Amino acid sequence: MKRKENLGDWFRRQESLLCVGLDPLPERLPQAVRDAADPVLTFNQAIVEATAPWAAAYKPNLAFYEALGPSGLETLRQTIAFIHQYCPALVIVDAKRADIGHSSAAYARAILDQLGADAVTLNPYLGRQALEPFLERADRGCFILCRTSNPGAGEFQDLSVAGRPLYQVVAERVATWNERGNCGLVVGATYPQELSQVRRLCPDLPLLIPGVGAQGGSLQQAVSEGLDRGGGGILINSSRGILYASAESDFAESSARAARQVHDAIEQARSQRSVDT
Amino acid sequence: MKRKENLGDWFRRQESLLCVGLDPLPERLPQAVRDAADPVLTFNQAIVEATAPWAAAYKPNLAFYEALGPSGLETLRQTIAFIHQYCPALVIVDAKRADIGHSSAAYARAILDQLGADAVTLNPYLGRQALEPFLERADRGCFILCRTSNPGAGEFQDLSVAGRPLYQVVAERVATWNERGNCGLVVGATYPQELSQVRRLCPDLPLLIPGVGAQGGSLQQAVSEGLDRGGGGILINSSRGILYASAESDFAESSARAARQVHDAIEQARSQRSVDT
Repeated sequence: MKRKENLGDWFRRQESLLCVGLDPLPERLPQAVRDAADPVLTFNQAIVEATAPWAAAYKPNLAFYEALGPSGLETLRQTIAFIHQYCPALVIVDAKRADIGHSSAAYARAILDQLGADAVTLNPYLGRQALEPFLERADRGCFILCRTSNPGAGEFQDLSVAGRPLYQVVAERVATWNERGNCGLVVGATYPQELSQVRRLCPDLPLLIPGVGAQGGSLQQAVSEGLDRGGGGILINSSRGILYASAESDFAESSARAARQVHDAIEQARSQRSVDT
Repeated sequence: MKRKENLGDWFRRQESLLCVGLDPLPERLPQAVRDAADPVLTFNQAIVEATAPWAAAYKPNLAFYEALGPSGLETLRQTIAFIHQYCPALVIVDAKRADIGHSSAAYARAILDQLGADAVTLNPYLGRQALEPFLERADRGCFILCRTSNPGAGEFQDLSVAGRPLYQVVAERVATWNERGNCGLVVGATYPQELSQVRRLCPDLPLLIPGVGAQGGSLQQAVSEGLDRGGGGILINSSRGILYASAESDFAESSARAARQVHDAIEQARSQRSVDT
């Protein structure tokens, strides 16, 4: 994302709707990178070089880098610097953070400044006030968890609040937090009906949609239910299907092919939607 | 915490109810540690040595270590190793994490294995299923956010679900998650009435109570409303009042005095409660 640009403006000028999840597991890295000084960094660089023609965004999940041990955050920092130098893609750090006061401000420094993320995922449970150190950064995007893609997501997110499920209340509140045009929502492809409800309630908010592929969500439904009135406004995330398309020496070419396939499937679903409407 | 012991058992044998928050801000470190190879580690070690006679637990918030840059997690790992070697205190990593599937498992590895935490704070929004990689570790504690101490905590936590605020629904659910005896709740001292309600609903769950001191919560009320029927079952957290008691060369002695004062104030409130009931 060009710094000084807000998330909504960035979305309006995107062509690709593909987000590639960069969630490296050391035991699944191809043999070809295992002797590198930093195998995860070398792997990430190869994946970015291979998939950049098809990807609008990359989404590294902080959990996988913290699990590498103390060196993991440096690997992530260098991965993000590489992406910014290599291509114009948005980097969304999937952090799902929420904390209060000084601690929230420290996370904003860590993720937006130290790591250099263009956007971040955040958890709504502590309320808007707690997330202000992120929200006040107009040139960085804030994707707030709304309906998550996991099987037990409904335990609290579906609780009825004045006749509506909690996730819908979250969606409507986040729309009011969007004064700087830098807010979006995370809604799992594994719940297409809920995705449809969120799009109805928030016609203009960008949606980050994980859960296609390994988690079982339908890409066609995610596109069809998620698109905004302009035929955009979504990012479809794919992680494992692209990262681990092959563990052989041709892993980068295989990832490029997998990224192109997901990209093309998104475009096909998008053109189908324009025909239907 | 002795490994193999669960959180409930640990609480039952505690005498002190004081938890010291280890949230170092580089700009507030005393001059005396600024020339050390790792100023934050040297500061933390001095604070632990000074306060260990009064502290049952230490609570480093991950945000402050991630904000130090890539070396911050190594500083935290060494801080935790030092505490475990120096004293029997419980180390609660204040992470407020929640993620799904592989990502949640990666956070559990990062926090419980790589960093070596005895316990962790977690966010309930994604439901129990998402937190299972933490909950299944019977020898590690899980403190779930219930009613947080920040001014805007009520935006979602107070929403009415079938006539009861959401935070009470969270409290009751967490009580059902506690099959392994390793669950507790986080409830802010800044909301004493809500704290009282949580204790009524969950007579046996350990409570981690931040928000006294700089955030304005009353220590006396927190103790009085939080204690369980056995006169224990709580940890009162104090961070800035103890860490930054002095910025001079006597900073460690000042922190020791501050820790003792908070400890004694807790004990006084506890003995007062026994008289009243």
